[in-house]
Amino acid sequence: MAASKTSPSPSGSATKLELKPQLRISFRKSIAMGPGKADLLESIAATGSISAAARKLAMSYRRAWLLVDTMNTCFKSPLVETLTGGAQGGGAQVTALGHDVVKRYREMEKKAGESVTREMAEFSDLMR
Amino acid sequence: MAASKTSPSPSGSATKLELKPQLRISFRKSIAMGPGKADLLESIAATGSISAAARKLAMSYRRAWLLVDTMNTCFKSPLVETLTGGAQGGGAQVTALGHDVVKRYREMEKKAGESVTREMAEFSDLMR
Repeated sequence: MAASKTSPSPSGSATKLELKPQLRISFRKSIAMGPGKADLLESIAATGSISAAARKLAMSYRRAWLLVDTMNTCFKSPLVETLTGGAQGGGAQVTALGHDVVKRYREMEKKAGESVTREMAEFSDLMR
Repeated sequence: MAASKTSPSPSGSATKLELKPQLRISFRKSIAMGPGKADLLESIAATGSISAAARKLAMSYRRAWLLVDTMNTCFKSPLVETLTGGAQGGGAQVTALGHDVVKRYREMEKKAGESVTREMAEFSDLMR
């Protein structure tokens, strides 16, 4: 209801204004980590398969594979390892480094959002 | 060169790792402000026309117009005003509120990025 907008709380929870911070981390010419890659890693961890993860995200297998390939190339060691065969049939698992990278990425997203809590409260005063 | 990566500076400027923070600010069901809308406002301010701004951003006129319409609906007063006729031929100008909104948005992007400077330096140690 409109009433909730008139007194925005510092946490932003009482307003209809929501902030979604997305971080794109480029390394040389590639995006090493970003919203799509983080979602994909989490989906691979949940499904144990690149193709199932891609389906879940409505992403083509080819695109998912390219994102995995980019991540594996940018980091010191692979974030995703494919098992037995590696092609569409084989399973995949997120490595310890992969889990660490997603965790750090999500924490950075959260911190980035929280850093502008005050500005967002002020911003909400500009809304209808 | 590879040497620059081995000692990431706190500012991140000496590493090949670059952070691009993007903020999407939702109001009710709409994205009131985000990367595309901020770019569009700046492009309209630079060109004085929605169609020229859209061309510059390789965006269709229809899409640009829809983004402007969403922004104008979400905020207390319009961020963009169309002049004389309003259709593709007419000019457009960013209002004082529009300039204020873009300025605040860019400042929030900057602050959000700076909030994770330390985490980014740590992150860079994970890169190849």
